[in-house]
Amino acid sequence: MSKLTWAMIGGGKGSQIGPTHRISAGLDGHFHLVASALDADPERGKAFAIDLGIAPERAYGSWQEMLEEERDRSDRPDLVTVATPNATHYEITSAFLTAGFDVLCEKPLTMTTQEAERIVAITRETGRVCAVNYGYSGYPLVRQMRAMVAAGDLGRIRLIKAEFAHGFHADAEEADNPRVRWRYDPAQAGVSAVFADAGIHAFHMACFVSGQAPREVSADFASLVGDRQLEDDAMLNIRLDGGALCRLWTSAVAIGRMHGLTLQVFGEKGGLSWQQQHPEQLLFTPLGGRTQILERGDAGLSAEAVRASRIPIGHAEGMPVAFANIYHDLADVLRAKKAGRAPDPLALHYPTAEDGLLSMRAIAAAANSAGSGGRWTDI
Amino acid sequence: MSKLTWAMIGGGKGSQIGPTHRISAGLDGHFHLVASALDADPERGKAFAIDLGIAPERAYGSWQEMLEEERDRSDRPDLVTVATPNATHYEITSAFLTAGFDVLCEKPLTMTTQEAERIVAITRETGRVCAVNYGYSGYPLVRQMRAMVAAGDLGRIRLIKAEFAHGFHADAEEADNPRVRWRYDPAQAGVSAVFADAGIHAFHMACFVSGQAPREVSADFASLVGDRQLEDDAMLNIRLDGGALCRLWTSAVAIGRMHGLTLQVFGEKGGLSWQQQHPEQLLFTPLGGRTQILERGDAGLSAEAVRASRIPIGHAEGMPVAFANIYHDLADVLRAKKAGRAPDPLALHYPTAEDGLLSMRAIAAAANSAGSGGRWTDI
Amino acid sequence: MSKLTWAMIGGGKGSQIGPTHRISAGLDGHFHLVASALDADPERGKAFAIDLGIAPERAYGSWQEMLEEERDRSDRPDLVTVATPNATHYEITSAFLTAGFDVLCEKPLTMTTQEAERIVAITRETGRVCAVNYGYSGYPLVRQMRAMVAAGDLGRIRLIKAEFAHGFHADAEEADNPRVRWRYDPAQAGVSAVFADAGIHAFHMACFVSGQAPREVSADFASLVGDRQLEDDAMLNIRLDGGALCRLWTSAVAIGRMHGLTLQVFGEKGGLSWQQQHPEQLLFTPLGGRTQILERGDAGLSAEAVRASRIPIGHAEGMPVAFANIYHDLADVLRAKKAGRAPDPLALHYPTAEDGLLSMRAIAAAANSAGSGGRWTDI
Amino acid sequence: MSKLTWAMIGGGKGSQIGPTHRISAGLDGHFHLVASALDADPERGKAFAIDLGIAPERAYGSWQEMLEEERDRSDRPDLVTVATPNATHYEITSAFLTAGFDVLCEKPLTMTTQEAERIVAITRETGRVCAVNYGYSGYPLVRQMRAMVAAGDLGRIRLIKAEFAHGFHADAEEADNPRVRWRYDPAQAGVSAVFADAGIHAFHMACFVSGQAPREVSADFASLVGDRQLEDDAMLNIRLDGGALCRLWTSAVAIGRMHGLTLQVFGEKGGLSWQQQHPEQLLFTPLGGRTQILERGDAGLSAEAVRASRIPIGHAEGMPVAFANIYHDLADVLRAKKAGRAPDPLALHYPTAEDGLLSMRAIAAAANSAGSGGRWTDI
Ligand SMILES: NC(=O)c1ccc[n+]([C@@H]2O[C@H](COP(=O)([O-])OP(=O)(O)OC[C@H]3O[C@@H](n4cnc5c(N)ncnc54)[C@H](O)[C@@H]3O)[C@@H](O)[C@H]2O)c1
Ligand SMILES: NC(=O)c1ccc[n+]([C@@H]2O[C@H](COP(=O)([O-])OP(=O)(O)OC[C@H]3O[C@@H](n4cnc5c(N)ncnc54)[C@H](O)[C@@H]3O)[C@@H](O)[C@H]2O)c1
Ligand SMILES: NC(=O)c1ccc[n+]([C@@H]2O[C@H](COP(=O)([O-])OP(=O)(O)OC[C@H]3O[C@@H](n4cnc5c(N)ncnc54)[C@H](O)[C@@H]3O)[C@@H](O)[C@H]2O)c1
Ligand SMILES: NC(=O)c1ccc[n+]([C@@H]2O[C@H](COP(=O)([O-])OP(=O)(O)OC[C@H]3O[C@@H](n4cnc5c(N)ncnc54)[C@H](O)[C@@H]3O)[C@@H](O)[C@H]2O)c1
Repeated sequence: MSKLTWAMIGGGKGSQIGPTHRISAGLDGHFHLVASALDADPERGKAFAIDLGIAPERAYGSWQEMLEEERDRSDRPDLVTVATPNATHYEITSAFLTAGFDVLCEKPLTMTTQEAERIVAITRETGRVCAVNYGYSGYPLVRQMRAMVAAGDLGRIRLIKAEFAHGFHADAEEADNPRVRWRYDPAQAGVSAVFADAGIHAFHMACFVSGQAPREVSADFASLVGDRQLEDDAMLNIRLDGGALCRLWTSAVAIGRMHGLTLQVFGEKGGLSWQQQHPEQLLFTPLGGRTQILERGDAGLSAEAVRASRIPIGHAEGMPVAFANIYHDLADVLRAKKAGRAPDPLALHYPTAEDGLLSMRAIAAAANSAGSGGRWTDI
Repeated sequence: MSKLTWAMIGGGKGSQIGPTHRISAGLDGHFHLVASALDADPERGKAFAIDLGIAPERAYGSWQEMLEEERDRSDRPDLVTVATPNATHYEITSAFLTAGFDVLCEKPLTMTTQEAERIVAITRETGRVCAVNYGYSGYPLVRQMRAMVAAGDLGRIRLIKAEFAHGFHADAEEADNPRVRWRYDPAQAGVSAVFADAGIHAFHMACFVSGQAPREVSADFASLVGDRQLEDDAMLNIRLDGGALCRLWTSAVAIGRMHGLTLQVFGEKGGLSWQQQHPEQLLFTPLGGRTQILERGDAGLSAEAVRASRIPIGHAEGMPVAFANIYHDLADVLRAKKAGRAPDPLALHYPTAEDGLLSMRAIAAAANSAGSGGRWTDI
Repeated sequence: MSKLTWAMIGGGKGSQIGPTHRISAGLDGHFHLVASALDADPERGKAFAIDLGIAPERAYGSWQEMLEEERDRSDRPDLVTVATPNATHYEITSAFLTAGFDVLCEKPLTMTTQEAERIVAITRETGRVCAVNYGYSGYPLVRQMRAMVAAGDLGRIRLIKAEFAHGFHADAEEADNPRVRWRYDPAQAGVSAVFADAGIHAFHMACFVSGQAPREVSADFASLVGDRQLEDDAMLNIRLDGGALCRLWTSAVAIGRMHGLTLQVFGEKGGLSWQQQHPEQLLFTPLGGRTQILERGDAGLSAEAVRASRIPIGHAEGMPVAFANIYHDLADVLRAKKAGRAPDPLALHYPTAEDGLLSMRAIAAAANSAGSGGRWTDI
Repeated sequence: MSKLTWAMIGGGKGSQIGPTHRISAGLDGHFHLVASALDADPERGKAFAIDLGIAPERAYGSWQEMLEEERDRSDRPDLVTVATPNATHYEITSAFLTAGFDVLCEKPLTMTTQEAERIVAITRETGRVCAVNYGYSGYPLVRQMRAMVAAGDLGRIRLIKAEFAHGFHADAEEADNPRVRWRYDPAQAGVSAVFADAGIHAFHMACFVSGQAPREVSADFASLVGDRQLEDDAMLNIRLDGGALCRLWTSAVAIGRMHGLTLQVFGEKGGLSWQQQHPEQLLFTPLGGRTQILERGDAGLSAEAVRASRIPIGHAEGMPVAFANIYHDLADVLRAKKAGRAPDPLALHYPTAEDGLLSMRAIAAAANSAGSGGRWTDI
């Protein structure tokens, strides 16, 4: 099985998420990095690309240059990952999709709902793959949750309790640090800060696991540090189209929480509880029964979870492996396209441009609701 | 030190909370049970009283009878506990206060704000003690939290995350069971079910620990099982008068949660996290520092926590001991009154009628807010 | 149901274990404290007794005086608790048993095997009750473990992993403090320090839960702080008569462990795991199945566990309640004796003089084994 | 930075540990797989090699063939990983070392002490690198423990409590399954089963973290399932040359334990506690102080831990990343050799042939000790 070829935009030396993409894309040997525009600084980007083993002529200084050169190659990359800052996602992603590339874009897909709609439209017209990196949905036990809900193990879903709380923007003295400041500046960050950046993962996970789409939202946004214009803490109530109610808390001022992404799902027949910091265990309580601990790697997990798991039970498989599942799905889909066959249905769990669009709608609606005292607002 | 005398109304044989009161009131040897009207059924109540060692002539069949007989005794009880169903609290408590007894009333203090206001008025006129049993505030590490906040260890409090979620009313088949049904019937339960019954403990704890009073609330109430008229799940945002924001989730449909009372407090300088199911540990994270585990019984805890602790470190002291701290406070206050001295300031942490009134206001405001789409409503 | 009368020797003001006995004996209202010799200092002992509400004429200065006066009273105490330092247990307990009292003695029952044998002989001759306070065996979920083993839920027991590790004697600078020093002085502590003091609880629990008696032991004792003559850390392998192997670690130098009493039991058909610091949960893994969390208070627990439980599920019931179960058992047994009826079979779980004797044999055998390089030694 | 070339022996399709090696070796982009003899079945091995992207002419059917062809190539692999069954390690590893290759061998390095001595001798004569895959020592927080001990943060080490317990060989009905049976057959497994296979990781970790070498051992081996000839549960006491005592439990019958590799280290000034199933947290208790939670990725960790960490705090980095640290160390060492420079001192933490030899000595000594009733035996 020959490798697929891969290009990367953003994720340069010292970037936060770049290394995880490289680990994850390469982890199963599916993707081979052949081209890149890694950095806002062209020279740094080229140098680092060569370090990473990319041929010098495909180590580009900018994504525009890369687009120009790569679009006409017969061996152009099978997948382009966009891991640049948010404000550039729309321009880059839509340009590459239009030029006929398949793209994995970091979240958020765009800055506005309109942009996200246009990207969805492009994918529909062109048939291109556009995925969005809600990578935590790649954890095997998150996929297990989805499978259990889909199989009816919980009955009708009544309630979802989702959280993503950390404390990394709690220091008032750090608030003016440019690395933090832009995140709370509407000019650069849009209408929402911590919900759009962190809480949105919990939002996607709630929809992913329940298999339901969001219908309306009532939100409360708070700016708790200094004179921030955007929220650093938010509470949302979201009504989903299958009847579930989702309560979602997200915060950047929760000192002591590290990466507090958790999901609890309650249905007529049972409850589930999962936390990203201990991703190898899932608690399942059947109505009237005892709580059971499901271990990743257990016999008896769903096909979805088994497919997403690589190493023996009892070990932490970790977040790079979770993200690798997104790449694994994409590899299967891209290979199926090449071969003119249908992809493995289990590969169709990666987040799509439609999911990215739903997120943008939710962000806009939540900001509107929060701005009008929590009024219920359509998504 | 001679014992104080104690009377009990409600808490009969087979009642849920009665045994805990008897364990807790007697635990330090402060109170000696001398009179009672334990049961809705006079004969059962008398028989059980005699089993408990009460003299037959003080084993009453009804609280009215007890009031009549005991009010004129020279050795009348130093404290009367009211542990009957909610709808009777106001009538019983106000009658005993008016007759000159000191009272510990179970929560909720009353069914309406007006009633609670009248009780507060009575205590002001008569100088009687009226406590309300928010017993979880008796846990040593909850008092430690309060002491740390008061000492400024967390700086100004920004955010409080409070929860009380269980799954004991999740079974749709059980919903018509009379033991469950009355709780969701407005005629018997008032304007709120799970918030008034369970979430209110989390509400009291948030106020208690922060030392702040609630100002306004935006609430979302949901009825998730069958056709319940009152909420079995609620989300509240509450603004406190010291600037803190409290987000409070309460649920009766969270299958798998047992007694999920938890409190997280986030300030400018640190965060605290405590859960009732593991009450012996408190997590404290100073801003920029490492999370520390405070053990009940640790050297270096506050005077409040030390006073509330009886057994060596590393053991579960348990909930009956927490409730015993309320009785311990009351014993000190009642003895001080008798002796004409000032009580130990550390004894003044028990919840009062004013706290009971605030709860009633919060319940009314939350129900109003929920009924108007989450509008911010004064408490 | 009239109260039983109770006397206490030791457990004076400021003592470590005295308060727990008073809380636990009184917790269910079974016992009423009527006589005492609480303190090595007669005046302190009398004054504290009066504080506790004992009649002055029964507030004795010494146990000898108490024995003299109480033996001929018609209303002599139904139970005498001995909570003095170890070296006095034998003399006091044998004197009271011989005089016809029923006794609950703190552990260790005696200082030597010979003494323990004599106490067992006395109880056999006189028919007196002599219990030993291995109070942790009173935890509802420990009794649940015993019941599950007895019911065959785990099949034949293969292996028991027991631990009791703390770090309270780890400070070399404190080692000469008299409060610590005597514990490592053979003249005062006998042949073993940390195993006889702490590990012995784990030992009793292993026997109690498995229902098996110890046969032989191979031990390694280590003195890790300063020049202590007795062990502050020990490892034992113990073969039980039903074929189970027990591995037991105990330590007083494990900095960071608080009250690390844990028990894991592994049989042919499943495994159990319990820790004293979170006594409300028991993990059960059936062979080939998922781990289940048993909560104290769960529907479906054994009659033994139900009888030992007083407050609702999800609360920490705590250690005073566990100890109260020993008193609860004794109350039933004493009342049955009085009434000339057979006691409730479920009340026969309290630790007896025979258990105390087995402990003394295990201590002697372990010290011998440790002294001869770990040779397997009969118990 | 061009990639190093890599070859693999064993680890074929469906093997347990093969996939982890491929993920880990490739994870940082250091190694590129160019040659292999992956399987006992030559055809399966070749086919899978081609699937993995190896050139057909370097997809060998046997390691002998590979040795023959590769030894004379100018571009021969920079590193050879041996991941075949234990009994073949000595022959393969010594052959490749002698032929001038650098080797990473799976544990155990050999089947006997004599063989391990010969491998150490070869590495000394030839200057070849020979590493052994005690991969858990690659976890960042394990390296943090070692750094803290080395820095004196715990003072002199007194005691190490090490465990590796699982329950995967507990099923008596499975005991005759050939996949399990060979492990307990002395002809195939040597003198020890569970200690040599699982406990040995805990043993290596104890030595690694303490920086001390083992001196003597007293062991108890037990065969608890069926009529196994080798132990499925073992307890060891080990005296180390720096004065520390290590107590090590290992088991294959502990139903409910998954991958119970844990390490606790107790010194004069503090204690550490780490468990492989939650590898992202390390508990540190300074003498007389509060337990602190160190998170992987925390500011203020040691250079060793920082170097071993790739993704942001709060995520599970996982076991493949831990193993990747062994490859990362080797890559640095191999590159330094090529460049004629000294390697980064932080890269010298990978386990070596000398560590492999120590393990073999410990296994032999433990089996001897266990065979003679636990006699203390030199390692
Ligand atoms: N899915 C997740 O869990 C997750 C986690 C973290 C970040 N992210 C997302 O990843 C994206 C990047 O975040 P980050 O934290 O790594 O940011 P970062 O600032 O650490 O790195 C951004 C990188 O992009 C490069 N870059 C900037 N502009 C560029 C341009 N025009 N062309 C090429 N390269 C350019 C920068 O030089 C830098 O190397 C963001 O959209 C963020 O929301 C997602
Ligand atoms: N603080 C807490 O954590 C907590 C916990 C549980 C219950 N409660 C409160 O305690 C109160 C009692 O709750 P419960 O769960 O024990 O109820 P329950 O129904 O189990 O018991 C109520 C008892 O009161 C008796 N009673 C009823 N009417 C009476 C009357 N007129 N006179 C005398 N006795 C009467 C009943 O016979 C019964 O013995 C409620 O107000 C409840 O909200 C508080
Ligand atoms: N079961 C358990 O878990 C547990 C826990 C702690 C202690 N203990 C046992 O309880 C016993 C007491 O331990 P402690 O830690 O409370 O000791 P302590 O030193 O704190 O208290 C001992 C008490 O006994 C009194 N005393 C001493 N000699 C006396 C005498 N001759 N007559 C009357 N009173 C006398 C002392 O004045 C003091 O009040 C010990 O045997 C100990 O092993 C058991
Ligand atoms: N470091 C660790 O944590 C760890 C974990 C598991 C296994 N291991 C070790 O890894 C080794 C392999 O264990 P496993 O569980 O993966 O075994 P396995 O039986 O699952 O796989 C062994 C592989 O080696 C191949 N093989 C056998 N003989 C061969 C030969 N002569 N030439 C080439 N290939 C051959 C087999 O075909 C198979 O693909 C063992 O030594 C084991 O102790 C280490």
